[in-house]
Amino acid sequence: MTRAYDQLETRFHQASVIGDALSMLHWDMATMMPDGSAASRAEQIAVLRGLHHQSLAAPDLPELLEAAESEVEEGWERANLQEMRREWIHTAALPPDLVAALARAEAACEMAWRDARAAADFPSVLPTLRPLLGLVREVAALKADRLGLEPYDALLDQYEPGGRAALIKTVFDPLEAFLPGFLAEVLEAQQRNPPPPAPPGPFPVEQQRALGLEMMTRLGFDFSRGRLDVSHHPFCGGHAEDTRITTRYNPNDYASALLGVIHETGHALYEFGLPGGRWRHQPVARARGMVLHESQSLLFEMQVARSRPFVTFAAPLIRAAFGVSGPDWSEDALYRRGIAVAPGLIRVEADEVTYPAHILIRTRLEQALIADTLALEDLPDAWNEGYQRLLGLTPPDNGLGCLQDIHWYSGSWGYFPTYTLGAMTAAQLFDAARHALPDLDSTLARGEVRPLLDWLRGAIHHQGSSGSTNDLVSAATGRPLDPAVFVAHLRRRYLP
Amino acid sequence: MTRAYDQLETRFHQASVIGDALSMLHWDMATMMPDGSAASRAEQIAVLRGLHHQSLAAPDLPELLEAAESEVEEGWERANLQEMRREWIHTAALPPDLVAALARAEAACEMAWRDARAAADFPSVLPTLRPLLGLVREVAALKADRLGLEPYDALLDQYEPGGRAALIKTVFDPLEAFLPGFLAEVLEAQQRNPPPPAPPGPFPVEQQRALGLEMMTRLGFDFSRGRLDVSHHPFCGGHAEDTRITTRYNPNDYASALLGVIHETGHALYEFGLPGGRWRHQPVARARGMVLHESQSLLFEMQVARSRPFVTFAAPLIRAAFGVSGPDWSEDALYRRGIAVAPGLIRVEADEVTYPAHILIRTRLEQALIADTLALEDLPDAWNEGYQRLLGLTPPDNGLGCLQDIHWYSGSWGYFPTYTLGAMTAAQLFDAARHALPDLDSTLARGEVRPLLDWLRGAIHHQGSSGSTNDLVSAATGRPLDPAVFVAHLRRRYLP
Repeated sequence: MTRAYDQLETRFHQASVIGDALSMLHWDMATMMPDGSAASRAEQIAVLRGLHHQSLAAPDLPELLEAAESEVEEGWERANLQEMRREWIHTAALPPDLVAALARAEAACEMAWRDARAAADFPSVLPTLRPLLGLVREVAALKADRLGLEPYDALLDQYEPGGRAALIKTVFDPLEAFLPGFLAEVLEAQQRNPPPPAPPGPFPVEQQRALGLEMMTRLGFDFSRGRLDVSHHPFCGGHAEDTRITTRYNPNDYASALLGVIHETGHALYEFGLPGGRWRHQPVARARGMVLHESQSLLFEMQVARSRPFVTFAAPLIRAAFGVSGPDWSEDALYRRGIAVAPGLIRVEADEVTYPAHILIRTRLEQALIADTLALEDLPDAWNEGYQRLLGLTPPDNGLGCLQDIHWYSGSWGYFPTYTLGAMTAAQLFDAARHALPDLDSTLARGEVRPLLDWLRGAIHHQGSSGSTNDLVSAATGRPLDPAVFVAHLRRRYLP
Repeated sequence: MTRAYDQLETRFHQASVIGDALSMLHWDMATMMPDGSAASRAEQIAVLRGLHHQSLAAPDLPELLEAAESEVEEGWERANLQEMRREWIHTAALPPDLVAALARAEAACEMAWRDARAAADFPSVLPTLRPLLGLVREVAALKADRLGLEPYDALLDQYEPGGRAALIKTVFDPLEAFLPGFLAEVLEAQQRNPPPPAPPGPFPVEQQRALGLEMMTRLGFDFSRGRLDVSHHPFCGGHAEDTRITTRYNPNDYASALLGVIHETGHALYEFGLPGGRWRHQPVARARGMVLHESQSLLFEMQVARSRPFVTFAAPLIRAAFGVSGPDWSEDALYRRGIAVAPGLIRVEADEVTYPAHILIRTRLEQALIADTLALEDLPDAWNEGYQRLLGLTPPDNGLGCLQDIHWYSGSWGYFPTYTLGAMTAAQLFDAARHALPDLDSTLARGEVRPLLDWLRGAIHHQGSSGSTNDLVSAATGRPLDPAVFVAHLRRRYLP
């Protein structure tokens, strides 16, 4: 007789394949799809999500999960069963109608957002954002009920299993206290010795793209299993055998796309490195959560790409890509521009020191919007007030303000805190890698990323979801997440 | 109480949406997907086809179809019900395992074919083609049983409802008798007055692409609902709101891609013009079959694009696209090159006179392979013998021979005859349009395609599958398909 556990593996395998198909439809929507197809695509996504939901919300699933408990030993099967239960809870918490309505509302709002952002017109997105937020709140309430959590935590738990607002507060509050003073010190030091100004370009898109592809290759991106394209908002999509990253090009600032490509490559390397074979379509083989996912992207974007050794390697590539030379393009100039700090309005272009401020603002705001203590109409003002308070800046329009990020408009509420938790985790992982690999700096200076990648694969990628984020970080670094490592890194790099 | 008929509409709607999602995965596989993802994509397609099959092979469907019979009046609901039954028969004839196995075998063979074609290595595709043909034969046998047809007719019926080998024979045999003598006459006349030689180029891909886009726009292609991309084998994919055509560029022959783009645009215009609204996802709103589909593409590629009036319009566009001038680029030179006849090896590059020979060869061969009177190993020899006999040519390798077309390698058996039936139908439709629109030539000479397109929409596109191919052709032209119209067209154009 087939074990209940094996029946579950078959069910979750099929659901995962539907998920992979969905990831392709999402990628296409963001990169290739003509605008007039938005409604059709929304319906395709809604139907496929419905079928995904149906396959995991089947009435006999609880029994199978129960029966499987006595069949599996400690180890990966048990870990897989635990993740199956987790996924089942998140799935079965929602009625099919809500799943379909959410898919439609997300697609509609995302398409409206594209135009709204281009026109810096926040009111134009309200007719689709308001119903979307309403549905997200319904999701939060239903999942909160099943999980015994607060509504915001139930949303957070979708992206970061085990993530809780209370834990985040213990990390974010000290950071908010630390950052303003630190930023002032850094800016003062920087004023005494300003970085050389960025050459104005233009940097032709084709050259930027070629440089990005070269960099991806050097970092270990496997083009037989992935692509680089252009989208309104950079992302890493697809699945382990077909990982698709995107960027966007600014002809006057090559560094933005280059660092973006490095960031998304970090995500892709995590996907490439997840457990394959028998486990490939099982919940235990998924990326652990978005904190570790962002830790992988930020480890490459912040820890690696802005380090002096890596700039030693990258400088000749950059000069060759644009056919430039001279003091503005020296290794030293490139390094110092890479760690230049300047409060700005755009999260994805933020430097490492001010980045957390962007996240603090968004996290507070989304918590308030989910808790209904902030009205959607008041979001632009609340956003601008946050930027004024934390970064001393007020966006000239909502396109550079609360419309800049896709997350809320595509239904991703509870995602933002994972960026800064990821940045902290990245600092701690890189610190551990440095201890484990005494030659790390010299290998990076030669563009040899492989030793670092192998270490990350062993410590994180190959682990999939076999332990909690905390388990994996503790095993890899010898202790749970410790914000002090991030702070020490900032001090070392920015106030040497 | 909900009518059985309305329940059926809901079921077929969902199946159609799954079909649209599948069409996107297919398009991506042919245009964007990295090679290393082939196995994953095959599995996604297999799972989605399984879900599509499941939704229409549901055990209660026969009862619903039965009950709906007494609910609907004459008109579109009845026509829809008839098409539902047709689709159900084709679906329920196959067990789910066969559907999944077929999807996997098709994807595997298509990927193997890409390499085999590039390397002109037929034996390398046999390990995937042999099992695929085995499954196709199983499909043919099962459907033949349900439909009371011969196996080959059951396959043909998938692409051309009501299409039968016996009917095709009555059209193809006289054509085979007529063509060799006619071709000799045409070649002799051409030798007396040879067309000016084609300028050798090179024609940069970007300029060819820009010309293709311009031509698509002029023909009425709606870029808010479609795209133009590149693939190994040109096709028209997607669905009514997102119609994606592809081409491939030969730097030394701009006309190949241009005519290919015009061909695929003809397909796309049919898709754009199908009934929308309530009927959009219903079987009655589908394209009637591949004969009418190919009639639309060939009407634009052969009847319109190679006509003297259209060349009057297109000549300045072509000259501007490549920045060329002089006698080689005169309207007369372009027209005469457009109707130049030369027996060749490649179907998609064939002229209008020799094109049917390519189809006659393929049709005979696929009938023999399905009937198992020809062994797969013997296909290259049989192919080459056919080319020698009908066109006096022998391919130098199998890449230019039996590996050139994707159809068999992607599981499309029984498709080829629709091209020549489509060419004949195109001649008859264009003849009727000319009678209905006395100004047709002068509008085409000005690049005004709209009157012709409106006529086609009324006669064909808007009719969807509300009648048989024969019904629609008869209503549009006053008589059933009459090969004499095609022959008269050939005489008029090629032996004036």
